[in-house]
Amino acid sequence: MKTLIKNAWILTMDKTLSTYPQGMLVIEDDKISYVGEYDSDIEKYVDEVIDASGGILIPGMINTHAHVSMIPFRSLGDDCPDRLRRYLFPLEIECMRAPLVYEAARYGILEMQRSGVTTFLDMYYFEEEVARACDEMQMRGVLGETVINFPTCDCEEAYGGLAYSEQFMSKWSNHLLVTPIIAPHATNTNDTKALQDAHEIAVRYDTLISMHVAEMDYEMTEFREKYDMTPVEYLDSIGVLSDRLVAAHCIHVNENDMLLMANRGVKVAHCIGSNMKAGKGIAPVKEMIEHGLTVGLGTDGPSSGNTLDLFTQMKTAVYAQKTHYKDRSLFKAEEIVKLATISGARALKMDDKIGSLEVGKQADIVLIETESLNMFPIYDPYSAIVYSANSSNVHSVWINGVSVLKEKQSIFNQTEIKTSLQNEMQNFAKRAIERSKRFINVNK
Amino acid sequence: MKTLIKNAWILTMDKTLSTYPQGMLVIEDDKISYVGEYDSDIEKYVDEVIDASGGILIPGMINTHAHVSMIPFRSLGDDCPDRLRRYLFPLEIECMRAPLVYEAARYGILEMQRSGVTTFLDMYYFEEEVARACDEMQMRGVLGETVINFPTCDCEEAYGGLAYSEQFMSKWSNHLLVTPIIAPHATNTNDTKALQDAHEIAVRYDTLISMHVAEMDYEMTEFREKYDMTPVEYLDSIGVLSDRLVAAHCIHVNENDMLLMANRGVKVAHCIGSNMKAGKGIAPVKEMIEHGLTVGLGTDGPSSGNTLDLFTQMKTAVYAQKTHYKDRSLFKAEEIVKLATISGARALKMDDKIGSLEVGKQADIVLIETESLNMFPIYDPYSAIVYSANSSNVHSVWINGVSVLKEKQSIFNQTEIKTSLQNEMQNFAKRAIERSKRFINVNK
Repeated sequence: MKTLIKNAWILTMDKTLSTYPQGMLVIEDDKISYVGEYDSDIEKYVDEVIDASGGILIPGMINTHAHVSMIPFRSLGDDCPDRLRRYLFPLEIECMRAPLVYEAARYGILEMQRSGVTTFLDMYYFEEEVARACDEMQMRGVLGETVINFPTCDCEEAYGGLAYSEQFMSKWSNHLLVTPIIAPHATNTNDTKALQDAHEIAVRYDTLISMHVAEMDYEMTEFREKYDMTPVEYLDSIGVLSDRLVAAHCIHVNENDMLLMANRGVKVAHCIGSNMKAGKGIAPVKEMIEHGLTVGLGTDGPSSGNTLDLFTQMKTAVYAQKTHYKDRSLFKAEEIVKLATISGARALKMDDKIGSLEVGKQADIVLIETESLNMFPIYDPYSAIVYSANSSNVHSVWINGVSVLKEKQSIFNQTEIKTSLQNEMQNFAKRAIERSKRFINVNK
Repeated sequence: MKTLIKNAWILTMDKTLSTYPQGMLVIEDDKISYVGEYDSDIEKYVDEVIDASGGILIPGMINTHAHVSMIPFRSLGDDCPDRLRRYLFPLEIECMRAPLVYEAARYGILEMQRSGVTTFLDMYYFEEEVARACDEMQMRGVLGETVINFPTCDCEEAYGGLAYSEQFMSKWSNHLLVTPIIAPHATNTNDTKALQDAHEIAVRYDTLISMHVAEMDYEMTEFREKYDMTPVEYLDSIGVLSDRLVAAHCIHVNENDMLLMANRGVKVAHCIGSNMKAGKGIAPVKEMIEHGLTVGLGTDGPSSGNTLDLFTQMKTAVYAQKTHYKDRSLFKAEEIVKLATISGARALKMDDKIGSLEVGKQADIVLIETESLNMFPIYDPYSAIVYSANSSNVHSVWINGVSVLKEKQSIFNQTEIKTSLQNEMQNFAKRAIERSKRFINVNK
């Protein structure tokens, strides 16, 4: 099967950032077989021709940090302090069950595809269910079961995630779209042995390890008091700071941390929307990149930033860096589109396969229409994507060569997916509302 | 004509922030004649019934600072330093003509209505054309001709805006939807006499005066060196700091400035998207409100923030304040919805007429649908509007009782408006691209 897309403003995101203002791209089965200027000879030998009508074609976007199955939490206790311990942890224990994780994952995947995300790194519970949803919905998932120092909704024993992960790895290791990884929750919610065991599993299965790092104020204080180290220094001291690590947030890393991380080849998932909404701070992305660190963008869970799309993250990331350094020329739009695409792929060690529009790469592709009112005029397509666009401008999406969104319509049944989720979350919603009433006037 | 909207989650934004989760509202001609619980008796005597299907009904949003006719500049030189003097001022002189201002205003008004903005404060050139566009498109506009110390695209003499404004006031003073005001460009681009003259005109016509205040670093330095005062202190010293003043930006105001402004009854148009994108800083909105200042939200021109919608501004404003003060509970979602509605109305001295859904007020109303993927679930409708929604969720809009957007379709011809603008901006686009090439590698 050969599909040709013509009349597109192609941003390849390759090493030299080649662009083709009236370009053409050919998808052959699951791969890209042509990118470049329009060539009428090629058009003769394809099965399908799509006229992009001047829309912008970019690589599928890569969400490097998410908890998609937390859809049921969206808009719950948003402005409440210590929401993690007031809402999230207790409701997870009370109500999160395998069917709800599955239904919420389907919903989240639909929402991501709708907004141009074609790959996501996820960490949650019942991760098997998320894998199943990816398998059914043609979604590229880099999925890790959470390892944490207390009993969880899917395991009665602390650190049950370690055993779960071993099984999960064995089962999903050779899947076309799913990459199983391991996901210790955070530096301060695992003991040293659990972190080392998790890393050892990642080594044994030659995969990634992802966790929350240097996100919380209290995490920083705790490590200073306990070890006189930063969380990053601690991870290094126990042998976990390796090039397999995708460290989420990294808001509070210092100069030495960044040097260490760069030396070890650690990757960073920058979650600016979640971080700003929670008043946690702004990660030093400029310095990270200057230190040679690879940085991708992440939405965090839909309860943290209320969204799973990267348009919001690109814009907010730019705003935050420019403002922090008082420099409007810092982080040009193209540099941020890089973070959402090729750098994200690099963070997940998948840049040989995805992240740019190049011949031989897997066909993960997003077409952004430029017909809507908010998309006119366009002098610079990167700028239009970062500053003018929102997720409603995503027109078509291909994942591994399969068209999952056509003219803003998903190939999956949105009504069925939403109804199934609503049915499955009735108990959750009831408990959430009860809890919400209890904390409604809590300000501190 | 009576239109009844039922099954809506009504956020009245009245003094006590009353809400009706399954509420009903009646529009009678140009006014709101009922807001409250569903009442089947009332339904019998209306001409039209609209089922909101659980959507959220809010007052029309109020954009307190814009230059809508700058649509042709969107995405031009976005990350270029000193864009104002490299792109904006020269292109305005070269290319901005009355027909282009008119066509761009129509486009901008369409875009604002599409995103739930029903009133905007505008300052630009050929403001007569903007007024004409408002008149034709049922838009509430608070419009001021720019007064500035150099020749402009619509006047060969410096300060020509003063004479223009007098004529403009006379002509539009009694219009149903247009409120003429006067708009000196900024504190540092007008001399003392011009600012005083402008204020005198505002007094004489009993209207507002709006200008850029404490926006630029160099503005602050200039006033310190020249007068040993802040721009706000200077405005006060020359008698212009009055309750007629809508001061845009106010990024660099200090404690004493805020006290002065509060004492004089000055209103603030907070333009966070524009300010962050330009790396200018974050206005101290928390302190402004603590000092009793009235603050509204503004998008600034579509070349500054690339958007004319307030969803982006609400979210960014919250993010910025929470992050600055490291407090996730600061600025609850409902407080930000207030800034976009009733506080905006207060800033424009129109809160007796618009800004909340109350009986007797003019029917400026926005229905936000909750069917789209990004809008589920909703525990708190304010939170959903601020954190989850984007402008594509706006379903229906009424201005002064007239339905201008129905089921996401404008009553105006979008294709015709866009084509007319494209035709009118050919010369502009050509010159813009030339200039763009000249500055492409300019970083500082």
